[in-house]
Amino acid sequence: MDSPVVPSGGVLTPLGISSVRLHDGFWGSFPTETIIDHCHEWIDRVGWVANFTGAPRRGREFSDSEVYKLMEAMAWTGDPRLDELTSVLAHAQEADGYLNTKWGQARYSDLEWGHELYCYGHLIQAGVAQARTAGGGELLEVAKRAADHVCHVFMNGRGVCGHAEIEMALIELYRVTRTERYLEMARRFIDRRGAPALADIEFGRAYFQDDVPFRKADVFRGHAVRMLYLTSAVVDLAVETNDRDLLDLVERQWERTVARRTHLTGGMGSRHSGESFGEDWELPPDRAYNETCAGVASFMLSHRLLLATGNRRYADVAERTFYNVIAAGPALDGQSFFYTNPLQVRVAGETVTGVSPRADGGLRAPWRAVSCCPTNLARTFAALPAYVATSNDAGVQIQHLTPARIEHDGFVVEVSTDVPWSGAATLRVVEAPDRLRVLSLRLPLWAGGGTAEWSRVWAPGEEVSVDLRMPPRFVEPDPRIDALRGCVAVERGPLVYCAESPGDQPPLSRITVDTSQPPAVTDDGLEVAATLTQIEDQPWPYGRPVEDEGEPLRLRLRPYYQWGNHGPATMRVWLPKR
Amino acid sequence: MDSPVVPSGGVLTPLGISSVRLHDGFWGSFPTETIIDHCHEWIDRVGWVANFTGAPRRGREFSDSEVYKLMEAMAWTGDPRLDELTSVLAHAQEADGYLNTKWGQARYSDLEWGHELYCYGHLIQAGVAQARTAGGGELLEVAKRAADHVCHVFMNGRGVCGHAEIEMALIELYRVTRTERYLEMARRFIDRRGAPALADIEFGRAYFQDDVPFRKADVFRGHAVRMLYLTSAVVDLAVETNDRDLLDLVERQWERTVARRTHLTGGMGSRHSGESFGEDWELPPDRAYNETCAGVASFMLSHRLLLATGNRRYADVAERTFYNVIAAGPALDGQSFFYTNPLQVRVAGETVTGVSPRADGGLRAPWRAVSCCPTNLARTFAALPAYVATSNDAGVQIQHLTPARIEHDGFVVEVSTDVPWSGAATLRVVEAPDRLRVLSLRLPLWAGGGTAEWSRVWAPGEEVSVDLRMPPRFVEPDPRIDALRGCVAVERGPLVYCAESPGDQPPLSRITVDTSQPPAVTDDGLEVAATLTQIEDQPWPYGRPVEDEGEPLRLRLRPYYQWGNHGPATMRVWLPKR
Repeated sequence: MDSPVVPSGGVLTPLGISSVRLHDGFWGSFPTETIIDHCHEWIDRVGWVANFTGAPRRGREFSDSEVYKLMEAMAWTGDPRLDELTSVLAHAQEADGYLNTKWGQARYSDLEWGHELYCYGHLIQAGVAQARTAGGGELLEVAKRAADHVCHVFMNGRGVCGHAEIEMALIELYRVTRTERYLEMARRFIDRRGAPALADIEFGRAYFQDDVPFRKADVFRGHAVRMLYLTSAVVDLAVETNDRDLLDLVERQWERTVARRTHLTGGMGSRHSGESFGEDWELPPDRAYNETCAGVASFMLSHRLLLATGNRRYADVAERTFYNVIAAGPALDGQSFFYTNPLQVRVAGETVTGVSPRADGGLRAPWRAVSCCPTNLARTFAALPAYVATSNDAGVQIQHLTPARIEHDGFVVEVSTDVPWSGAATLRVVEAPDRLRVLSLRLPLWAGGGTAEWSRVWAPGEEVSVDLRMPPRFVEPDPRIDALRGCVAVERGPLVYCAESPGDQPPLSRITVDTSQPPAVTDDGLEVAATLTQIEDQPWPYGRPVEDEGEPLRLRLRPYYQWGNHGPATMRVWLPKR
Repeated sequence: MDSPVVPSGGVLTPLGISSVRLHDGFWGSFPTETIIDHCHEWIDRVGWVANFTGAPRRGREFSDSEVYKLMEAMAWTGDPRLDELTSVLAHAQEADGYLNTKWGQARYSDLEWGHELYCYGHLIQAGVAQARTAGGGELLEVAKRAADHVCHVFMNGRGVCGHAEIEMALIELYRVTRTERYLEMARRFIDRRGAPALADIEFGRAYFQDDVPFRKADVFRGHAVRMLYLTSAVVDLAVETNDRDLLDLVERQWERTVARRTHLTGGMGSRHSGESFGEDWELPPDRAYNETCAGVASFMLSHRLLLATGNRRYADVAERTFYNVIAAGPALDGQSFFYTNPLQVRVAGETVTGVSPRADGGLRAPWRAVSCCPTNLARTFAALPAYVATSNDAGVQIQHLTPARIEHDGFVVEVSTDVPWSGAATLRVVEAPDRLRVLSLRLPLWAGGGTAEWSRVWAPGEEVSVDLRMPPRFVEPDPRIDALRGCVAVERGPLVYCAESPGDQPPLSRITVDTSQPPAVTDDGLEVAATLTQIEDQPWPYGRPVEDEGEPLRLRLRPYYQWGNHGPATMRVWLPKR
């Protein structure tokens, strides 16, 4: 099946990319081809492909992985340029399967930071994509040689990679090939962590989840992408080994993380320092890191948990993350990308036209010194149809409402809807087998939650429909989130909204919102009643602040995912209450 | 004069260490000798002295500077161990004056991170201390050789050090020796910054103040210690070259920084990432970095600005920084030290008995991989008498009320007071010349501000007194400081107070404070009326929070500087209002 994740067990089964066609609509609106072209062009321009041919090395120690993630995207879309890239890799791979462009450096001499195994992980995922779309090929062979080499070197011993990733790749390769040692290697990598397996570093071993064994941890911590990739692998392992205790543990860790360490957008990672989760309730809007890749990783994890458990709460969080982190990643034209996704920007970002040396910034960049996000988005959008619906023996579950044609075992459903702009949706059965089929639809939390189910022997042309109410709503933070005290945010349907202020007009540091009137829907977004106050500047900012009465104002809000497309601007999601 | 700073011009003149004797009282209470012994023992144990003798190198690239800062402290206190350390350095210094323990590495091959010139800066300051306490000696000669070498290598060209420090050291050496080239070298280092002079780095060039020329900047930014050391040098340069425009510029930068980028404690540095200033209004209590060394550096800068301008506002900020950052640095026993000084700690820190690899932590550590703070505190406490009072032709100005004997030009004043525990103070003239002498006392801002002046021909035994009211008070943040919305803090006299909660009992995340009743003074601190609420845990922390009515509680507060001396605990300065 042409899906990035194909578990051997679990409650729900994914649908492959070829089983779901996304029509024009929110999920189908992303310029995947443009993003792939963009990444292809940049990855070449910055020399990360030439690295494989022995050119003077350019880029960071993990630059190979960007080539592999791009190749994974190309595999899902059937891009003919995949073969050319594959042959470059095949020539670079050493006889024993080792493949890394840091020529001349001792192999595996720096597991903490070297990223060799991390890069293999992405290589293997690309190989899996080729296996599942084309039935195999040279890329899959390169990936298997690398995987065999890893098993040979690491099966006995204590080593793990400082950046988790290879674990879930090996399990997926096991799912493709049924080669048991891949699963066993992944299990050992997972179980070695926390012994500890790696050296202590300034960020502490929690950075790479080596502070305690996974089975003894109770919450997500450390580097967010590392944590979420590792946990995705643990779900895969639990499913493949039928380890219910391990799955329960992940569910508890996820529960606490979502309840206490996740931003309103679904973004994960509170700290710039270490690109990491913060402590419980540490959720600053301005310094929220919320790496785009952590959004991708959280989406991958939620999807795995949904498949494993059938619990709709994972689809609820996946939805939130998709609409408000992943969708925010690329500019509307697909030519530049966010790395961090803060919920407040006080100083308008600077336009970057070349390679940004930094992760920060209130504006998207075409490329970065660390450019993990564009290729991660490329492979996610390329495989997006596989995330929309699931199946089981009884029928099909539509997990995310977006215009699409969904096919499973002779049962074909056309979904029409304008979500997230209005809440009506029609599900029309186009083809149906002559037996009972259950068509189910996850009703989003914003529409009250629950599941709509229609169970019948369908006749082609039959349709059912729902009309979900989506009035804009104010939401308030848990009082323990200190950084959000006294603020509200506005949501409508699955979308988080924000105030974006080009040139900081109106100045967002002096706006308060009147929550006694509900937000209003306008032609191009939402509007709330607000007040613009003057605050007297003081030589010392602590004492008795002096504010005037203020002037009334209608404050326009736009969907958060659209922000940053209109030039340098300030922005805030959380608005102080009057 | 035996003071770290002896400007050739400016409005006020410092008093030397030997002119001020601190009696028992707040400023005299720090265990300086214990701290020096502690640093001496650790610096030896971790091999940072042995580095000079060619032993296998240990420690970070700037470890030499810790030896030098310790030596500066020893010079101020007349510690006999200084000579032994000096002779180690003298043997290590190369024939042309170069001195650095990173043997075998190409000289000045990494100005961004190499810290060679930074280390010289601390060496030179130690040499200056020897010159001013002993009239000179081998340490001064070593320092001069290093300074001459620097002038030889760097006078022409574009290089600067990634960490400012040598600039103010060279100017102080110029003040001792009147060798013009030291001043000129410092001027060139200052003016080269922002051309730019250094390579771009992930933190951006603002990290080392190389983003714009100093003369074009309008606020403090980047790495806080670097910024404050650089600015101290700029004040010195402005004074020595009589450059009023440059001094005005520093004053404006300082003004905006104090008004918008400084924590209630006087702490500077909002970000862990880059140990740096944040943007205006970015002042998170939990992630406040507030490095102890930035407190020391800010204190040094305020003192220079006070001397240069005579403006009491600099002493106001120096007072705040001293009582609430510098005083918080060492444990009460002088055996462990804070590196960061956050205003909120949600998770109790872990006790560290050896070398901490990290800067973080809610408890002090005896030593760290980066151990800049203990030696910086040592030299500051060793020279502390020099910061208490100033003089001019008319007489003496007492800048900080603490029990002391202050002598200037035959005019001797004994100060008796119990500040910060009560506000009464008596100034008794013990000796006086037979002419008009003005005795002035800065009245702290918490006592209404202003200056008390007594101008007369004094007879020995005459005394004047003040009785400053110091009721505890609530202070509120400027509404633009998002991270503090809805909170109050409590101060009394010069001290910021905090709630410290061993084992998080009571749980500080569920406390709100009733500000309708003023804080009460108790036997061992302060107390405020508070409520402890139950907050219902939700699977998603944004929506409609559910809190109960809560139970009334008297919440005890202690001076912030004392926190962390009572085992693992949570802590907060800013308390949510009921």
